[in-house]
Amino acid sequence: LNKLAIEPEDDAAGNAMHNLIRRLFPICRSITGDGTRETLAILREHLPELKIYDVPSGTKCFDWVVPDEWNIKSAQLISPAGDVVVDFADHNLHVVNYSIPTDQELTLEELQNHLHSLPEQPTAIPYVTSYYEPRWGFCMTHKQRVELKPGTYRATIDSRLEPGSLSYGELVIPGETKEEIFVSTYICHPSMANNELSGPVVSIFLAKWLMGLDSRRYTYRFVFAPETIGALAYLSGNLDHLKKNVRAAFNLTCLGDERCYSYLASRNGTTISDRIARHTLRHLIGDFAEYSFLDRGSDERQYCAPGVDLPMATIMRSKYRTYPEYHTSLDDLDLVTPAGLAGSYKLLQHCLSILETNRIYRTTTIGDPQLGRRGLYTDFGERKYGGDAKARMDILAYADGAATVLDIAEMINMAAWDVRRYSEELLSHGLLQLVE
Amino acid sequence: LNKLAIEPEDDAAGNAMHNLIRRLFPICRSITGDGTRETLAILREHLPELKIYDVPSGTKCFDWVVPDEWNIKSAQLISPAGDVVVDFADHNLHVVNYSIPTDQELTLEELQNHLHSLPEQPTAIPYVTSYYEPRWGFCMTHKQRVELKPGTYRATIDSRLEPGSLSYGELVIPGETKEEIFVSTYICHPSMANNELSGPVVSIFLAKWLMGLDSRRYTYRFVFAPETIGALAYLSGNLDHLKKNVRAAFNLTCLGDERCYSYLASRNGTTISDRIARHTLRHLIGDFAEYSFLDRGSDERQYCAPGVDLPMATIMRSKYRTYPEYHTSLDDLDLVTPAGLAGSYKLLQHCLSILETNRIYRTTTIGDPQLGRRGLYTDFGERKYGGDAKARMDILAYADGAATVLDIAEMINMAAWDVRRYSEELLSHGLLQLVE
Amino acid sequence: LNKLAIEPEDDAAGNAMHNLIRRLFPICRSITGDGTRETLAILREHLPELKIYDVPSGTKCFDWVVPDEWNIKSAQLISPAGDVVVDFADHNLHVVNYSIPTDQELTLEELQNHLHSLPEQPTAIPYVTSYYEPRWGFCMTHKQRVELKPGTYRATIDSRLEPGSLSYGELVIPGETKEEIFVSTYICHPSMANNELSGPVVSIFLAKWLMGLDSRRYTYRFVFAPETIGALAYLSGNLDHLKKNVRAAFNLTCLGDERCYSYLASRNGTTISDRIARHTLRHLIGDFAEYSFLDRGSDERQYCAPGVDLPMATIMRSKYRTYPEYHTSLDDLDLVTPAGLAGSYKLLQHCLSILETNRIYRTTTIGDPQLGRRGLYTDFGERKYGGDAKARMDILAYADGAATVLDIAEMINMAAWDVRRYSEELLSHGLLQLVE
Repeated sequence: LNKLAIEPEDDAAGNAMHNLIRRLFPICRSITGDGTRETLAILREHLPELKIYDVPSGTKCFDWVVPDEWNIKSAQLISPAGDVVVDFADHNLHVVNYSIPTDQELTLEELQNHLHSLPEQPTAIPYVTSYYEPRWGFCMTHKQRVELKPGTYRATIDSRLEPGSLSYGELVIPGETKEEIFVSTYICHPSMANNELSGPVVSIFLAKWLMGLDSRRYTYRFVFAPETIGALAYLSGNLDHLKKNVRAAFNLTCLGDERCYSYLASRNGTTISDRIARHTLRHLIGDFAEYSFLDRGSDERQYCAPGVDLPMATIMRSKYRTYPEYHTSLDDLDLVTPAGLAGSYKLLQHCLSILETNRIYRTTTIGDPQLGRRGLYTDFGERKYGGDAKARMDILAYADGAATVLDIAEMINMAAWDVRRYSEELLSHGLLQLVE
Repeated sequence: LNKLAIEPEDDAAGNAMHNLIRRLFPICRSITGDGTRETLAILREHLPELKIYDVPSGTKCFDWVVPDEWNIKSAQLISPAGDVVVDFADHNLHVVNYSIPTDQELTLEELQNHLHSLPEQPTAIPYVTSYYEPRWGFCMTHKQRVELKPGTYRATIDSRLEPGSLSYGELVIPGETKEEIFVSTYICHPSMANNELSGPVVSIFLAKWLMGLDSRRYTYRFVFAPETIGALAYLSGNLDHLKKNVRAAFNLTCLGDERCYSYLASRNGTTISDRIARHTLRHLIGDFAEYSFLDRGSDERQYCAPGVDLPMATIMRSKYRTYPEYHTSLDDLDLVTPAGLAGSYKLLQHCLSILETNRIYRTTTIGDPQLGRRGLYTDFGERKYGGDAKARMDILAYADGAATVLDIAEMINMAAWDVRRYSEELLSHGLLQLVE
Repeated sequence: LNKLAIEPEDDAAGNAMHNLIRRLFPICRSITGDGTRETLAILREHLPELKIYDVPSGTKCFDWVVPDEWNIKSAQLISPAGDVVVDFADHNLHVVNYSIPTDQELTLEELQNHLHSLPEQPTAIPYVTSYYEPRWGFCMTHKQRVELKPGTYRATIDSRLEPGSLSYGELVIPGETKEEIFVSTYICHPSMANNELSGPVVSIFLAKWLMGLDSRRYTYRFVFAPETIGALAYLSGNLDHLKKNVRAAFNLTCLGDERCYSYLASRNGTTISDRIARHTLRHLIGDFAEYSFLDRGSDERQYCAPGVDLPMATIMRSKYRTYPEYHTSLDDLDLVTPAGLAGSYKLLQHCLSILETNRIYRTTTIGDPQLGRRGLYTDFGERKYGGDAKARMDILAYADGAATVLDIAEMINMAAWDVRRYSEELLSHGLLQLVE
């Protein structure tokens, strides 16, 4: 069951996001290197406020060290007959990410140690990395691999591993308070669309939407960083600030396909972010998959670690590691669709809106107010009780000056945005007052 | 499953209650007026201690104002042929309660705006009110309505709306402490039997029973008031007293039919009243319907409102709004029976008895006492373990000086009245002592 | 489902325990008397550190008094024809335990009041006692009883009831701290094997195993006492010490058959002992029966009583009162097997090991450490994530300096001994540190 209706304006956003993904798709990203910087530069075209930071190779980030920067110009594998077997120019997944440079001849048997394919998915090129061990390798479809003929192959990889930097982007959108909503997404994956171009692209559009609002209760912090080492680099420079200011946090990844929505809990499992994620998915979507923190695998690993403990929920459609195209060349521009992106975008708008409007109201009367004389009650003669009148009375019955909009929404089993709407109406009639 | 057995003495109470309902049934009650005062006067015949109070029209009760008093002498609708179509003298539901006076001729088409019937229940006269909007109208069976012939009708309603008062009754039965048990019921419904003559009549008999007890731990406060405005009028004069003194509260309504018992939770849901209602229904009755505060609709709306928060559970048989005869002429003296009333009366006696006897005991020994030498253990040679011996040992094992009788009853899954009986036996043997 | 594998070394322990049970089986034990002292003396052969205490007859133990000591030399029932119907020398269950001496002739009819048998188990001799009421009687199979011929029988019981003492054994194994693990088992049952020789024999072997360990975090206290009166005698002399020092406690009984394992909760139900019992049964065994404290019947009655409240869980295989051979001559050396005993012994070793190793660790890094460079991560190129790497990361993610090994084990659904093993590995790599 997916209750979410995609409206024409959502279609427009979906198409715009898909266009941005198409533009970013061919770039060869990694945890360092020019591809990542090019990606950030394109994102900055959409949001000039995006700041780009460079962390030099060798910088210690807790237990990790920023590695040498990796860049690659070209790579080819030539068959004994002189044919190009695979070419980096065709697909940047063909080369193991962070491959050291090489130019050598090998027998097929020797070469096999440097080849990667997926027997169970014979038409997919796998995504393989070796950031911290010096290796080189080629990735190809298993279909192609099994047809390789014996003989001497030539492997050339024109890559460089040199001191440089790790780049990440940060965007801070100020609000009425210094309390922050933190959004994390990552930019290290080469040509794959769901995991991961959907996360940064949806994040950019959310940021644009937030900047267009008349006012914002919270300050918003978006971070676009390489996974793991980028998150750790960011954390190591901002840990105290984040622990002090962040009130809710979302990790955005795998948001572009049209399958089931899903949510992965924070380590704590009961933070405001968890509650909002579950509430929005239940009321806006209906059916969704719920994962425990034990199923984690993205940057919630760092942001929810002991001693960090940000209240971070991960929101996704098909979760990483669970869909067949995951970490292969099949995670492409067909898997990710405008409608898929639009649904996620709308979902997240609702999540952030709940935070913005999660105020505390208190009834101004003792006992039920007389809704009838204000035109807020059921019509005369109606024997059925329900609808607007019931909603108003339920909200009045629970607005005790301690419960938030989300608390009330959960208690009366109504969407938080509906509770908010009725509450504003009751506020305008003087039947509710805002509590500080 | 209904485990409650009706004994001959219950039959007597049931018949006496049904007789009182028969006497009160024909009176045209409303939220104000002579019918309500006549009703209170008859209730006072049973309980001379009942005090009757009048709240003048125009009195502000929180967000509400006591309206002008309504009285009606007669009303008729005359057909084009000169026949009496409906006559208030036949059934006081025939007139919209609080109808303004009128005497006019109308075409059938014009008249339709002033008629009320139930297409889905063609033989029932609906109960319609318009307390706060000046209207007039007639109610009739749908069967009769569809046979009305075109032509000019004459509608006459000889009613008065004038400054007067709203009347309610209050009965306070003193106990050993000033801590109070509060019982609320309402007296504004014209000729209907389950909702609502069953509530006030069962309340009167409970009060009589309490007054006949040798001693009462608690002070009891019964309030017989018109629904909503009456409760608010009562609350506005007694809010601080109630908030300070009330330890448990029950709202009594719809207690007279022979269908399923039911219970509606307080807003909090876990008060002592909720626990007692659930415990008694489970152990005395067996199956029962349990409703959330979201299903509320009676005076628990006022007494459990934010800022009031009395620990009030509503106890019913067929809940208002859920049975087909609700708010129609079919809610009559056949629907409500002596046996139905007797079961409710017995149930509520058990609820109040739990409160009266919900003491804390503590074992006087360390470890199990030697029940055998006191004749309190299993017979010699019995290999089965259970029955009285098991009950005694379980109570001794949980009587830690902190748990109440009800706490122990819930922990060992035994009826509270049985826990109480065994506890008194163990007390008499010196194996338990009362904790202050 | 029983996941526990019995290894050859477990077989050796099982056989040794079964041999000890065979030696103890024929002795006529009771709550006092020479048989109990002989039993303690044999147990002391295995553990010379076992101290034996005598509590004189007449000593007050809370609500109880230690009775006169009972000893029996012989007993016979002679038929009218002069045949020996039953002879105490054949089976010591043939005489009601604590029978007063007698030597008299009776008709069969008179005799019937002194006979005990089980119609529903016609080949079993029942176990009957009368500690606190002076009675005498014979127990026999129902098969034999129904064949008794009319006539005059002679009943002779050569027993003595004289001031003496109740004996119990206590073994204290010192550890690094004065905090204690308390193990209770009982020694009052005559020739029955599961209930009860399995408890004291498994306890002796656990004590021997503990004494053989290089170090022990906790002090261990084993008590071998007659049921009920022995536990109360022990408690009355040690109550304050136990309440102050005991951190976990296990009651060991019915541990020798090969059926389902079971556990009976403490009165509180959530103590560390309860958690360890459930955790070990779930992870080591799989399926097991779980009983509430309401199903109690052994010395947990005293040790969990109000005012004592030791954190005591009872661990069993077939629970007393639930298996057909319970308290009859069928509870014999066939019902209890070496494998049955070995399984229980191994289970309890795991329970005690969890206590010994239930430390608190804290991660030494912020965020995930880099497991790869320490050889602790998944192999290169593996797309599947799980196994050791996943286990290590989960432990690191929950080792927050507050959670114990058992807490983490429950949070990540892993056996506590596995959590401990990985934690020690991570400690050795400097990735965890021990919290005091």
